[in-house]
Amino acid sequence: MAAAAAVSPLAPKKFAEPPPIEGVRLAAGAAGIRYQGRTDVLLAVFDEGATVAGVFTTSKCPSAPVDWCRDKLRHGRARALVVNSGNANAFTGKAGREATEMTARLAAKAVGAKEDEIFLASTGVIGEPLDASKFDDVLERLAAQARPGGWLDAARAIMTTDTFPKVATATATIDGVEVTVNGMAKGAGMIAPNMATMLAYVFTDAAISAEALQKLLSKGVKSTFNAVTVDSDTSTSDTLMLFATGAAEKRGQKKAKKANGKSLKDFAEKLDAVLLDLAQQVARDGEGARKFIEVRVTGAESDKAAKKIAFSIANSPLVKTAAAGEDANWGRVVMAVGKAGEKAERDLLSIWFGDIRVAHEGRRDPDYDEAAASAAMKQDKIVIRADLGLAKGEATVWTCDLTKEYVAINGDYRS
Amino acid sequence: MAAAAAVSPLAPKKFAEPPPIEGVRLAAGAAGIRYQGRTDVLLAVFDEGATVAGVFTTSKCPSAPVDWCRDKLRHGRARALVVNSGNANAFTGKAGREATEMTARLAAKAVGAKEDEIFLASTGVIGEPLDASKFDDVLERLAAQARPGGWLDAARAIMTTDTFPKVATATATIDGVEVTVNGMAKGAGMIAPNMATMLAYVFTDAAISAEALQKLLSKGVKSTFNAVTVDSDTSTSDTLMLFATGAAEKRGQKKAKKANGKSLKDFAEKLDAVLLDLAQQVARDGEGARKFIEVRVTGAESDKAAKKIAFSIANSPLVKTAAAGEDANWGRVVMAVGKAGEKAERDLLSIWFGDIRVAHEGRRDPDYDEAAASAAMKQDKIVIRADLGLAKGEATVWTCDLTKEYVAINGDYRS
Repeated sequence: MAAAAAVSPLAPKKFAEPPPIEGVRLAAGAAGIRYQGRTDVLLAVFDEGATVAGVFTTSKCPSAPVDWCRDKLRHGRARALVVNSGNANAFTGKAGREATEMTARLAAKAVGAKEDEIFLASTGVIGEPLDASKFDDVLERLAAQARPGGWLDAARAIMTTDTFPKVATATATIDGVEVTVNGMAKGAGMIAPNMATMLAYVFTDAAISAEALQKLLSKGVKSTFNAVTVDSDTSTSDTLMLFATGAAEKRGQKKAKKANGKSLKDFAEKLDAVLLDLAQQVARDGEGARKFIEVRVTGAESDKAAKKIAFSIANSPLVKTAAAGEDANWGRVVMAVGKAGEKAERDLLSIWFGDIRVAHEGRRDPDYDEAAASAAMKQDKIVIRADLGLAKGEATVWTCDLTKEYVAINGDYRS
Repeated sequence: MAAAAAVSPLAPKKFAEPPPIEGVRLAAGAAGIRYQGRTDVLLAVFDEGATVAGVFTTSKCPSAPVDWCRDKLRHGRARALVVNSGNANAFTGKAGREATEMTARLAAKAVGAKEDEIFLASTGVIGEPLDASKFDDVLERLAAQARPGGWLDAARAIMTTDTFPKVATATATIDGVEVTVNGMAKGAGMIAPNMATMLAYVFTDAAISAEALQKLLSKGVKSTFNAVTVDSDTSTSDTLMLFATGAAEKRGQKKAKKANGKSLKDFAEKLDAVLLDLAQQVARDGEGARKFIEVRVTGAESDKAAKKIAFSIANSPLVKTAAAGEDANWGRVVMAVGKAGEKAERDLLSIWFGDIRVAHEGRRDPDYDEAAASAAMKQDKIVIRADLGLAKGEATVWTCDLTKEYVAINGDYRS
């Protein structure tokens, strides 16, 4: 593996520890799966009664833990989450399925729960057999150590090529009762989530039925995790899960059964904010990233068309290398709009870098100023906007630039 | 623009000059559009009676010359072709249309033909106004200089970031009469042709109707130019044209009116061979390329599904960076199969690097040998094969690796 990169220049300026969530205890430890001298296993333990929802990769070759979680989600109850980094347990055949079963058995024993209440994820190299027996002592120890809080340590334990731990927090009100929403994520590479990103977990003490939880999550993911890309490559392990302990019920919150009820309006907003915060952190920590790029498409035929065009821009190697070179190369944005396959009319198209309109009505803006456009490209955050001039469809997605460091990191990740 | 790279290590070992084609005269010159100290304009002059066919980019924002050629193809006659490098005349609005008209007018005057018998192409920066008045003297001079042969010089005049000129030749027999098929192409970046690649021109002395010519070309492009990718970015200028002078008629070839007639069987095969040769040269000269990669997908649900999966592998930044790093990272091939959106069953999937089967039936091959797999990755040409084990659909596509040089070339191409 390549030497760990310095922290991304796009990382948050400070890392604040989110508050504890009643009903969730965390512990991070080292099982030595791949990395030495750092934590690589996270155990989250939930009090009885926690509900759970999840969205997963649309890959046709999902990892063994993704298959496991999909299956266990049916009853909507969770007692523990085990995440290991360094090995994805993907494309590992029967041995992979056995490794997930063994991990669930060890975790169930450690926390005193049923196996089918344990949720699992693995992230790292694909195709390498995972030796789950390494979790044997570790999970027992972590179950004993688990405590409220410790979010940053937990986020660190699930990192692979990430350069900083990703956490987010918000406070929402349900029926006048304050509840907390905390999340953590890991990202870095193989990031073009098609249901969720690599690994992200959100926790709350709100009391919400599994059915309502699932609806909130499935809706929230669309404009957050499903709107970021690092390299257009969709992982076999994408997992986003939301756990609700229900502890707020003791403080007077009536358990919410329906996602679209009035009582969950504020919660849904705050949940989306946490998801968006985490998703943007994933783009900010894309492998080798030096620029955070927001792509806004307006005036498209539909929101769906706008999103396809936005991703065509955000995934274009030529747009991303231009951003890396701080080159106001708007011609490549035209190219990416043109190749997206959605309706576009050259002579109605306008493009902006930041506040600078660089192209208008099918040609370079008459007031085009190279110096001003270049200045917009020198910022850490670059906003690219394309207006199609056709209708009202719009979408915003986030990505990062494509640098030599991305190539270096991925030229020798495995060996 | 970045300093010119050394010649690609994947370039042909020698560059042979194709034979002249009766009825075609060539001349290359310097108009100083963008490059200094090199040729940047190609003029090809055809004797009266030449037929023409073409396929173009599917971009919704095509260049002005693409619009021009599409329109003029309707009558199927050609007297001249003008190609300039350094400026794409794309997204240049009304001024761009006027520049194509002026170029056609100047060329028509220089060769003594009608404007609508002139075909045009421009390649280079998008969005920059093209000053066609620079062609004024140049085209007159080139028309006077044009001579049979000079294919390598012609191919050099249309290069942008290409590191070597791309030509190919074949001899075919129609009705017992030998005819010649020569082609030239330019590629390098923004290469994911969706009808044709950046710019490619094929010439023959065969006598074939424009209608038959178009059918042969549209069929031939599918498994050749539409099966290569450098960076998944589709250009606004993709143009592939085929010109047939009909000179072979004087030597007894009966003019072919139908593409599917028996007489054109050998010609169609040789045409496809020339197209494939040129398309593969484009992949071999992809920006920054150090590895030529062939991706073969077998056992898919259909040929169409196989091609989509093959391109998912060939366009994956993670597969391409692994190739650059000579890393036998077959897990990324699993990822790319999984994200393609076509039917795949993890437990039926097998993967080979060269002759080495690395994965079988949903897991690492039991006989996996890292040293043997690594040796396959050290070759200049890497063959990646994925068998889906579902049905008989198959496809082969070609690409190159993704290197730091690609990022360097495209980080400062424009400025």
